[in-house]
Amino acid sequence: MGAMNSAQPTRLARVLTGEVLDPPPWWLMRQAGRYLPEYRALRAEAANFVEFCLTPSLAAEATIQPVRRFGMDAAILFADILLVPRALGQRLCFGEEGPVLDAIDETAGLARLSSSGISSLEPVYETVRVSRAALTPETALIGFAGAPWTVATYMAEGGASRDFRRVKAWAYRDPPGFAALLELIADATFAYLSGQIAAGVDAVQLFDSWAGVLPEAEFQRWVIAPTRQLVRRLKQAFPTVPVIGFPRGAGQLYERYVAETGVDAVGIDTVIPLDAARRLQSRVCVQGNLDPVTLLVGGEPLANAVRAIREALGGGPLVFNLGHGVLPQTPPEHVAELARLLTAPIG
Amino acid sequence: MGAMNSAQPTRLARVLTGEVLDPPPWWLMRQAGRYLPEYRALRAEAANFVEFCLTPSLAAEATIQPVRRFGMDAAILFADILLVPRALGQRLCFGEEGPVLDAIDETAGLARLSSSGISSLEPVYETVRVSRAALTPETALIGFAGAPWTVATYMAEGGASRDFRRVKAWAYRDPPGFAALLELIADATFAYLSGQIAAGVDAVQLFDSWAGVLPEAEFQRWVIAPTRQLVRRLKQAFPTVPVIGFPRGAGQLYERYVAETGVDAVGIDTVIPLDAARRLQSRVCVQGNLDPVTLLVGGEPLANAVRAIREALGGGPLVFNLGHGVLPQTPPEHVAELARLLTAPIG
Repeated sequence: MGAMNSAQPTRLARVLTGEVLDPPPWWLMRQAGRYLPEYRALRAEAANFVEFCLTPSLAAEATIQPVRRFGMDAAILFADILLVPRALGQRLCFGEEGPVLDAIDETAGLARLSSSGISSLEPVYETVRVSRAALTPETALIGFAGAPWTVATYMAEGGASRDFRRVKAWAYRDPPGFAALLELIADATFAYLSGQIAAGVDAVQLFDSWAGVLPEAEFQRWVIAPTRQLVRRLKQAFPTVPVIGFPRGAGQLYERYVAETGVDAVGIDTVIPLDAARRLQSRVCVQGNLDPVTLLVGGEPLANAVRAIREALGGGPLVFNLGHGVLPQTPPEHVAELARLLTAPIG
Repeated sequence: MGAMNSAQPTRLARVLTGEVLDPPPWWLMRQAGRYLPEYRALRAEAANFVEFCLTPSLAAEATIQPVRRFGMDAAILFADILLVPRALGQRLCFGEEGPVLDAIDETAGLARLSSSGISSLEPVYETVRVSRAALTPETALIGFAGAPWTVATYMAEGGASRDFRRVKAWAYRDPPGFAALLELIADATFAYLSGQIAAGVDAVQLFDSWAGVLPEAEFQRWVIAPTRQLVRRLKQAFPTVPVIGFPRGAGQLYERYVAETGVDAVGIDTVIPLDAARRLQSRVCVQGNLDPVTLLVGGEPLANAVRAIREALGGGPLVFNLGHGVLPQTPPEHVAELARLLTAPIG
């Protein structure tokens, strides 16, 4: 395990375990991706996106590219949260409009799934090994997976959704059947993250991108409970590996998520006010929450927003990040500008 | 003005001004629409959606249909928030994927707009008159418009958006120019709502459907400030007409919205926890927040969710509603079931 084997913990690991660093460590969600010309050139070497993710030499290079250019404190494994449903037996492809899966439903969904395809994820572990070997010891490598609820939304909706009516209708009509689906996902996710950790990631992030579409009681049942259980299993198996949870859009339910799931750090989205983030920071490290459009715009709005976040949250454990992923239209020089803003002390 | 001229205030008007009623008055966002077969038949009588909205006999009939079938306490004017950009000079049509406008941007956007087309909204006032005349005095008629920020998102994005990068980039790069756009929208919206009120609506709702995509400082500037100003103008001109604000997705910023905008009631979305809603209720009437998918599912999940909302919020001023619009796939009999659940005292 990366950080554990190195002499010094990384800057990322230090704040994830509660230290305060100025300037804060930083990385960006989707820091590897289409806004980088070297990524677009690399992407052309695979016939499709799934193949790209499952070719360790390509995925590792994509993982490393942004760190090489901008010197973030962490790389994040290049992969996709939907490799897990694919490993469970769903067809997966990526079109112009995003991912497409053959949606499952409550009538025959579970029967079509099986954990026997979990070995299809092994190339990802090789990506971790190659990436870890290429990164300096000071650079953390973050593994990740989708949280069970968010993965289930894609599995039941067949892709992105506006109303989440298929997945919610399943969960509301048939809670035991839906719980069985989430358990299947959680088991596969535990195995997947265990594989990533064994291969060398220093921390893991659980992306719950659609946590913010559930009412309170269902949030408790389908976001908090499965996350808590998954975090507990990870902590039992890998007590020193920090877990970052990102319940995007959870609004007023963020506090409960932090209080009850056991995550070491919480990703905060763009709409979370900084004083609310500071309250979360009294319990855990916070990670966020620059608006990706501010990074796209650059200049004075970027400098002002970075300063506001650092002033509000720099007194506690903070991983500087975006509140959502880098937009493909972002000029790379704005990320370089952000790196400059983040290497200077706040003064 | 409807309610003011009638002998008794409507049940809706009573709770909007702070009374507590059991059972609470109710209506549903998008209660007129595609889930109703009589709406689909009516819709076929116009060549396109804009023509439908601007034909008073059709739009008034759509307004009344759900009340005739289910007996809600309020009808809501059938119209569309994008009639305002159209009145300002943008082309508007509705395709399979939603609305399409010829997007404006900061370079020449304002020059292409003018308030001279505001008279194109007059058929909507006639829809109000026809609807008001057809409804019983006990049934409130709600007028509405988009809040300036949300209307601006459609104007700058050219339709629905996932990342809001065009509208945000404009706002972040050129705050004075963007403020001028919002002022133009706000002026047209004030005129539009004044026309609706003069024609007989009893209350108005400001839909800020995309309030939840802005960081704190920008939320203050582009959601709260223009809403507060618009509410103030409405209150000066029509002191007895309640204003409902719906800053969907505002999460932890809901409290500030309620404290600072001056709205009489606040629409709460599905993810707002009921204890947080109760805190809002100490200041204003709350309206919401049943998950539309629960209505789609019906049965015991529906009964349980309705009971939970009434138990948590029935002790204060409450308008029972959804947290988002009725889904087109909703069986009408589930709305009838909801009506039965809402006419019984909670016991």
